[in-house]
Amino acid sequence: MRIVVALGGNALLRRGEKPDASVQIEHVRAAAEALAPLALRHQLIICHGNGPQVGMLSLESENDPALTRPYPMDVLVAQTQGMIGYWLAQCLRNAGVNRPILSLVTQTLVDSGDPAFAAPTKFVGPGYTPSQAKELADEHGWAIAADGERWRRVVPSPEPRRIIEQDSITRLLEHHAVVVCGGGGGAPVTADPAGRLTGVEAVVDKDATAALLAIAVEADRLLVLTDVPAVMAHFGTPQAAELRRLDLDELGALRFPAGSMGPKIEACRRFVATTGNTAAIGSLTDATAVLNGTAGTTLTEAVDARVRDLPEILNPTRIGGAG
Amino acid sequence: MRIVVALGGNALLRRGEKPDASVQIEHVRAAAEALAPLALRHQLIICHGNGPQVGMLSLESENDPALTRPYPMDVLVAQTQGMIGYWLAQCLRNAGVNRPILSLVTQTLVDSGDPAFAAPTKFVGPGYTPSQAKELADEHGWAIAADGERWRRVVPSPEPRRIIEQDSITRLLEHHAVVVCGGGGGAPVTADPAGRLTGVEAVVDKDATAALLAIAVEADRLLVLTDVPAVMAHFGTPQAAELRRLDLDELGALRFPAGSMGPKIEACRRFVATTGNTAAIGSLTDATAVLNGTAGTTLTEAVDARVRDLPEILNPTRIGGAG
Repeated sequence: MRIVVALGGNALLRRGEKPDASVQIEHVRAAAEALAPLALRHQLIICHGNGPQVGMLSLESENDPALTRPYPMDVLVAQTQGMIGYWLAQCLRNAGVNRPILSLVTQTLVDSGDPAFAAPTKFVGPGYTPSQAKELADEHGWAIAADGERWRRVVPSPEPRRIIEQDSITRLLEHHAVVVCGGGGGAPVTADPAGRLTGVEAVVDKDATAALLAIAVEADRLLVLTDVPAVMAHFGTPQAAELRRLDLDELGALRFPAGSMGPKIEACRRFVATTGNTAAIGSLTDATAVLNGTAGTTLTEAVDARVRDLPEILNPTRIGGAG
Repeated sequence: MRIVVALGGNALLRRGEKPDASVQIEHVRAAAEALAPLALRHQLIICHGNGPQVGMLSLESENDPALTRPYPMDVLVAQTQGMIGYWLAQCLRNAGVNRPILSLVTQTLVDSGDPAFAAPTKFVGPGYTPSQAKELADEHGWAIAADGERWRRVVPSPEPRRIIEQDSITRLLEHHAVVVCGGGGGAPVTADPAGRLTGVEAVVDKDATAALLAIAVEADRLLVLTDVPAVMAHFGTPQAAELRRLDLDELGALRFPAGSMGPKIEACRRFVATTGNTAAIGSLTDATAVLNGTAGTTLTEAVDARVRDLPEILNPTRIGGAG
């Protein structure tokens, strides 16, 4: 089976943790152990997030007195692909994956006319109090927005249109390599009419990139692995319950909060709608069970009426789960 | 023909230049234009240096107040692989290389007992006055050493023993991909008896990594491209003259200064001695001519006596050239 896994950046660095290398590599080690059974039995692409990491490197660059201008987001995303790709390749190997493991630095084509450039929404870096955030925004020229009770920097998050390296990625899968790519959504680039690429100040959503990649390589499954066990109905209330199966019709009737579970569900929806194949959302630690449908939320084109479960608790306004 | 190019980190950022992204991408663009003809006609691996870049990221990490400890060198090298690999892939494509171009994050195995760990020699980062350097060394626990009139941080530079991903790299070449890998010498790792890898605080010489890679992939040529036109005899004197051809016997009689031309010549010597194939050192801007032997210094196993040139100016004590 050919599988694309989207791995949350928060799975590699939890909120409130120091962004030390030693902290992150422990999380990567746990992630690699959870993914190793998939890597050994299937064709596997891993597309990791990088929210906390690109935020850290961005701040370091902003504060580097040797620079005239801080590094643009495309370059910082590429740096995180190097760092996290290195950790993942090393830890997968150490977890017993005795197949070639290749971490690729990849570029994601976006449209220069994407409306996202005029309305930044993607959180990068740590959270601040409103007054701290305002001060930093003035100092660095950031756009900022509220993320729960904290305020964070936001950057444009245009839609991914194509993974520049997607044909090579397919070729590598055919040769039984495990491929780490599209990290942080891929370094975002636009193309001029002659096809020449230029990096842009943006961060592509890694779940959207993973979905596009899964479609491009004709994957059998898209797994969005994070730190919550499943998509929840009545999230945050005493009636909270896992949604174990959803189909496209049911999804169409639901609304999800932007910025947390929303992009994950949207990525799965696109993959399922385009390919007719199955996607799933669940906990990284349950990776194998999520693949098998015995944990997490499985999203399909159409669920047979006899196996629908929990339809009575569906509530369009209270679906969620931390991302 | 299968070619490995070692590309100097100084070719991407010259001494005294601001390490801005905009400055570096212009140099990468020029490098890509010089290398595009090779990429179009041959199987090509590009192994780039990262001295100035890893120095910059290292300083940023040292000064990041969010961290308990700065990032170790293996992780910083991986970050530079992401950044420079991204630039090279993008610029090669923009220079008309219409073949797959893959930038890989690679690991280089070193021996934990390598004597280099006890005697750091590899310069990273900018130069300082002796008193500035002493102060920074005390503050950050650096080892420092003189590099000309300036003092710089030095880190261990163990011998590369194996490129972890070398089999996949060969496979990619067979599929006509241009491969960027081994950047900054590769992220240095040691292996325990069970083969589990761990990153180490070191920077492997990228010319040594390029030579090892060239041997491993059975390359026909190793080209070490830098910012000087050739190996020079009587370097720095009015009698300075380019050495156009050298063989292993002649090399054995010469001494070269460590830290500049020395590692480049040693890398070529290893490749030529191991494979019997030809290596060359020259200017990046002359890449095609260096490959053809019409520019730069060509190093061969044995030069036919009739075509030896300039033997009269060979001087074991005055061979050099800035690296």
